[in-house]
Amino acid sequence: MRATTIHAPFDMRVEDVPDAAVRHPTDAVVRVLRACICGSDLWAYRGEARRQPGQRIGHEFLGVVEETGAEVTGVRRGDLVVAPFMWSDGVCAYCREGLTTSCEHGGFWGSVGYDGGQGEAVRVPHADGTLVRLPKEAAGDDHLLSALLTLSDVLGTGHHAALGAGARPGATVAVVGDGAVGLCAVLAAKRLGAERIIALGRHAVRTDIARRFGATDVVAERGDAAVEAVRELTGGQGAHAVVEAVGTEQSMRTAVHIARDGGAIGFVGVPHGSATGIDLDFMFDHNIALRGGVAPVRTYIPELLPDVLDGTIDPSPVFDTTVDLEGVPEGYKAMDQRTALKVMITV
Amino acid sequence: MRATTIHAPFDMRVEDVPDAAVRHPTDAVVRVLRACICGSDLWAYRGEARRQPGQRIGHEFLGVVEETGAEVTGVRRGDLVVAPFMWSDGVCAYCREGLTTSCEHGGFWGSVGYDGGQGEAVRVPHADGTLVRLPKEAAGDDHLLSALLTLSDVLGTGHHAALGAGARPGATVAVVGDGAVGLCAVLAAKRLGAERIIALGRHAVRTDIARRFGATDVVAERGDAAVEAVRELTGGQGAHAVVEAVGTEQSMRTAVHIARDGGAIGFVGVPHGSATGIDLDFMFDHNIALRGGVAPVRTYIPELLPDVLDGTIDPSPVFDTTVDLEGVPEGYKAMDQRTALKVMITV
Repeated sequence: MRATTIHAPFDMRVEDVPDAAVRHPTDAVVRVLRACICGSDLWAYRGEARRQPGQRIGHEFLGVVEETGAEVTGVRRGDLVVAPFMWSDGVCAYCREGLTTSCEHGGFWGSVGYDGGQGEAVRVPHADGTLVRLPKEAAGDDHLLSALLTLSDVLGTGHHAALGAGARPGATVAVVGDGAVGLCAVLAAKRLGAERIIALGRHAVRTDIARRFGATDVVAERGDAAVEAVRELTGGQGAHAVVEAVGTEQSMRTAVHIARDGGAIGFVGVPHGSATGIDLDFMFDHNIALRGGVAPVRTYIPELLPDVLDGTIDPSPVFDTTVDLEGVPEGYKAMDQRTALKVMITV
Repeated sequence: MRATTIHAPFDMRVEDVPDAAVRHPTDAVVRVLRACICGSDLWAYRGEARRQPGQRIGHEFLGVVEETGAEVTGVRRGDLVVAPFMWSDGVCAYCREGLTTSCEHGGFWGSVGYDGGQGEAVRVPHADGTLVRLPKEAAGDDHLLSALLTLSDVLGTGHHAALGAGARPGATVAVVGDGAVGLCAVLAAKRLGAERIIALGRHAVRTDIARRFGATDVVAERGDAAVEAVRELTGGQGAHAVVEAVGTEQSMRTAVHIARDGGAIGFVGVPHGSATGIDLDFMFDHNIALRGGVAPVRTYIPELLPDVLDGTIDPSPVFDTTVDLEGVPEGYKAMDQRTALKVMITV
């Protein structure tokens, strides 16, 4: 089969690899229909996260079950399914608590020895715990498929951020970061009842999507000027709930300083310097909490799925570029150069 | 009247100062019966927090109302009252939400121009919002008075830490720090229903109090060894709820690394290097939250008071040394040299 591999920084290839196959009785093989490229894939692309030459990549996909191991009972051949960005067994203590990202048998797509999502098919470990069935008729609905694909990562991650920040009815939510996750956090905050949503971002194309997703205000400034702008919008107080969806020192510093006393920061930006942006004295004086991390999106899919299916929320606008599998290297280039917000792959 | 003043690091004096008096119609004057010295007072004593020469000090006291301004309706002359470690108006948005430490008219005892608790009397701004009445008969009960005095700071701060950490029925709670606040956090965690409480500390006198307060396990190790010991006690998982009641880099680092995936750190140690102990990558990977800060103890007093009055909890053992007002400088010396855990002042 064909799949994306990474050989060195900026050296993405689509090449022939061994066919995905059931190896354990709890495995399933999923033939991929849609996959996508994540902002976090760019850390590997840019060489800031190490990969072995030839390692597979991609952690967001949906497709059709092609084969199942003997112990798989939750899905069967022909089912349309979506996979979260980590697999999990669904039965350990952490999974039962909903923290599927801490699953005792969990793992990441594209780890050495495992298929990645940016390929024709994927061997899915712990298929019963991992995969979530989708209505079969969705397979024929291009628009719906792209919306459903966000359940694999960015929508659930945005939801995790909004929850961590404490988005709730009546709250003012500020979102630092105008990438796909930040935009999905806007959508999630709106869904959770936030009254006012301030999106921080300077790219009009993206902040326009933020407004479609429910942002009531846009702040294009950065750094101290952004803090001042948010404070001005909130009568000097700051936002009850702040999403940090970037992971840099500056984004975290901004997030801390635009939070209202007693508020919280929901952080889902993979830390790349953000620890040094944590002003603990400020957080102490103002009782600002920090909650978040790698999002247990498997847990959130059943809650978010009905709203995607009935159109209550439509996260599909985060995809602004589509490539086929052979076009994946171009897709990386476009995201790296920020000419694409998020690239969808039709397989 | 006589009151404690700080003239320079290690130069505490008890001297004649102008009598406390009502200046604003919302003021009251409280004649102090009991006060105490806080671990955080030592930052000023050691010169790590700056004070103006002659500035007053002390933020924990209880006593009898001597005089009230024209607009004070909640307390009257002769009432036995306890004061939280900050004053607050009780009516602003933050006070109504329970975050009295962010009160728009709040402030700290011993600020320039204000009385401190370590003196014969205190002018209390916003007396209605600040003071909490105690049963008059408690004035004759030395033991109960010392227990009630902890409501001014350490008991409420320990409670804030336990809440921030997420102490709850069935939870395993670990407490980093064996000072008075750490010990009160043990007591608070027990009161909140924690099943297992691991106290980290190496001073037997203090960990013995921790055991009296409800600690089920004591870990005397520090640093990596402490992390290992707590992990061993918890089947490798760590504690659901971790209290950080020190504020140093090492204590925060320990707190982060003994937390269970999905758990939280309740931090109430005034940050003195603790920001650099925050391992954000670890917190991200394991979804560990950080919540806390300066404790809104005014909000907690009504909840904690009945349990202190009826003996359900008895925090008085945190006081191991008593001095009179003239003995305050000796009290500072004893706490600085750790020959005293916490010094009570009978005025």
